[in-house]
Order: sequence, then structure tokens, then C-alpha cells
Amino acid sequence: MKKFEEKTIQSELKYKGRIITLLVDEVLLPNGKKGNREIIKHPGAVAVIAITEDRKIILVEQYRKALERSIVEIPAGKIEPNERPEITALRELEEETGYTTETLQYIQSFATSPGFADEIIHLYLAENIVKLEEKADLDEDEFVELMHVTLQEMDTMITNKEVYDAKTAFAYHWLKDYLKQN
Amino acid sequence: MKKFEEKTIQSELKYKGRIITLLVDEVLLPNGKKGNREIIKHPGAVAVIAITEDRKIILVEQYRKALERSIVEIPAGKIEPNERPEITALRELEEETGYTTETLQYIQSFATSPGFADEIIHLYLAENIVKLEEKADLDEDEFVELMHVTLQEMDTMITNKEVYDAKTAFAYHWLKDYLKQN
Repeated sequence: MKKFEEKTIQSELKYKGRIITLLVDEVLLPNGKKGNREIIKHPGAVAVIAITEDRKIILVEQYRKALERSIVEIPAGKIEPNERPEITALRELEEETGYTTETLQYIQSFATSPGFADEIIHLYLAENIVKLEEKADLDEDEFVELMHVTLQEMDTMITNKEVYDAKTAFAYHWLKDYLKQN
Repeated sequence: MKKFEEKTIQSELKYKGRIITLLVDEVLLPNGKKGNREIIKHPGAVAVIAITEDRKIILVEQYRKALERSIVEIPAGKIEPNERPEITALRELEEETGYTTETLQYIQSFATSPGFADEIIHLYLAENIVKLEEKADLDEDEFVELMHVTLQEMDTMITNKEVYDAKTAFAYHWLKDYLKQN
């Protein structure tokens, strides 16, 4: 998988923040010329497709500063240092929804923006979910509102752009297929 | 859609590059406390689900420096200044695949990484594609290899992580549904 490899000539750190790091790499292109690549390093994330007993999907509405609007997403969150993604997934499910499960299943992983970022998101399926007696705490800068919706309602939310992000758009089509078969 | 709005107290430009810009916004959180948001501004992108007459999908393999590997994706590219997304979509289809179409259809748009970036990707469907007599030029730092695959082959490529990005993962499940109905 090293086809068209771009070898790093030098890598310059432009910004190191709380969550993301920005590098500009000077690279040797496959044609022997030089180029520059702006790269965001991100710790990676998880997202959880959580289904209730009556086959509704749990979604969370939150404000996304980058978009300057609130959108509705499947529960998700960043991986903490040295945390295994399945632990992050269970933690985020508990923190954001107040539910937990003993049967978390891995679905697949994908890069969100391979053109400029190394962020990978790992998707999980949570079925047989049960309400926690005491809801886990959210991060101190996190404000979310929960909703339980049918697949049909989710379709409407995509049409009116309330659902407006890649992982949740993926989740809708993945679920449509999954619920047909299960 | 302004629920949990985070008002900007001040916005600091940390990096302005060729493609991305990095800002750190100090914000007023809904609980009255202050927080910081690291934000990447990106011009936005398009991606095209292109289907051949024999119901194969056109994919492109390219090296992604951010991931330090090559992956297989649906044709995609950045929106140029003042370019309408459907123009970008047709241009990228022509440049990356050597095909064109008179029936480009808009599917939907989504944010790729709403936690830290404003990048929106607009998805289009290209059917009834015809080969250009002369292939359009790629960008000078762009190297891609074309492939035509069946949905079944694409499924295998997801399993072995050759297909490894959000828009292409979405495209697979969207297509699975679409091809059943058409």
C-alpha cells in the first residue's frame, strides 16, 4: 500500500494545541518534484450506533463551533491517551446517553478527512442497551441533548440537514441495511 | 439550530496555509464559563459516486500523506474559490477518471470532522458516464490509479482496509441501497 509514496524531506511543526497539531511536510512526489502537505494530527475518535429495544437510534444534538451551528450526531468522542477505542466507545455511550451495554460490537474504522488529517473514527454497534442508574458526567465543556428516533425520522433529519456529518450519514445507511437483516 | 450556542469572545489566527487555516477561538459556553476551540477552516470538497454501464463503481487509489499510506476512494477534490460544487464535481470526475456525464445528480452534503473542522463534502451521483476523448489533466501534485469494481469487490476492499475513508464507506452503503432499487 505504498504506491505513489511521498517521502518526507522535512516536517515543520506549525501549531501544537490541546487536541490537534498542525505540521507542514515538505515531500518528494512520485515524479521527483517537491511539494508541501499541510497535515492535522488528531488522537482519533469513536462513534456508537446505539439501538434501543424498540429499534430506535439514540442521537445527540450539540453545538459544533467549527460549523457555527448545532447538529444531530450519533454519540461520539475523542480517544484519550493510551485508551483502547472500545473503552472510549463504552465511556462515550455512558457519558453522552446514560446507557450502557455488555455487547458492544466493532463495525469498522475510517479516516474522516484523508486529504489533510490523520483522524480515524472507529464505529461500534451497541444493542441490548440498559439505562445506567446514575448518569456518567460529560466533559466540562460538553453540552448535549438526547433524542431517540426511528430510521424514518432520521431520514427526515438528513433531508432537513439536522443530521449533517459523515459518521451519522454513514450510520443511517449502515443501519437501514442492518435492520432489514436483523 | 442555535441550541447550546458558543459565542466567540476572540478568535486568534494561528496558521494560514495553502489549503487550511487554523484558528483558536475563545468561546462563552452555555454554562457561562469560558472555553477554547481549535478550528480548521477548509474550502470544502466534493465527491462523486460514478457508476459504469455494467454497474461498476469507479474508484481511485492515491497516497494520502496524512495517513502515510495509499487508500482507495471515490473521486473527490477541493472546491476552488468561487466554484459551484457541481462544477467541481464534474471537473474532478473528468480529471481523475477521464469520464464525464450529462446527468450529474446531487445526493447530499455532510461535515467530515465537525469536532474541529468546517469542511463540508458534497456528494454527487454520476450515471450514464462517457469516456472523454482526451483525458483532463490532474493537479501537478496529484497521482492516482483508477479501478472499476463491483459492489462485492468494494465490500472486500472495506474488509481489508484498502477502502478506508468516510465518504467512500458512505458511498458503499448508499450504493448498496440505490442499486437494489434501480
